Amino acid sequence: MQKFVVMYPRQPDMEAFKAYYVEKHIPLARKIPGLQALRYSFDPQTLAGEAQFACIFEGDFADAQALGAGMSSPEGERVAADVVNFARVPPLIVHYSIAEEAG
Amino acid sequence: MQKFVVMYPRQPDMEAFKAYYVEKHIPLARKIPGLQALRYSFDPQTLAGEAQFACIFEGDFADAQALGAGMSSPEGERVAADVVNFARVPPLIVHYSIAEEAG
Repeated sequence: MQKFVVMYPRQPDMEAFKAYYVEKHIPLARKIPGLQALRYSFDPQTLAGEAQFACIFEGDFADAQALGAGMSSPEGERVAADVVNFARVPPLIVHYSIAEEAG
Repeated sequence: MQKFVVMYPRQPDMEAFKAYYVEKHIPLARKIPGLQALRYSFDPQTLAGEAQFACIFEGDFADAQALGAGMSSPEGERVAADVVNFARVPPLIVHYSIAEEAG
């Protein structure tokens, strides 16, 4: 599995961010070819209670090739281009293959 | 679902880090009560190719209560206390509930 993770720092207007994110951005993300599952959260916390990120998104793809194809598709490019419409502070984006998974 | 994510920056000796992590730390982590699944990766990359973290771990718990119980159990405390044994540069730890999940 290849994971695609987007971590948004706290934004100046979190309510506007959340509204756009849920109503506009996530529906676009669902259209990305090859995206097998997605999860997101608006309440990331550290163990000390300090919030370093205000929103975390995870998307699952079959492998690196599927991720590349999905993100370079018209739907993927549309999602990427949409980020500037709601994130005043840009997110940290990380992707990685799972070395091991255990249920 | 409550996710527990640990992101390790690049370490001075990555080979030693990986060996300890796989052989010692992960076996301890598997013993945490309530941990439903775990995944890890040694190849996180950003879209620009720059590696901000050298290792990412994800653990899934049923909810925040299960996470709290698991991490405060003797097994959980043993795992937390083990981190200084292999991570010279401390990890960023984030936990969050999933607002929405779609398959």
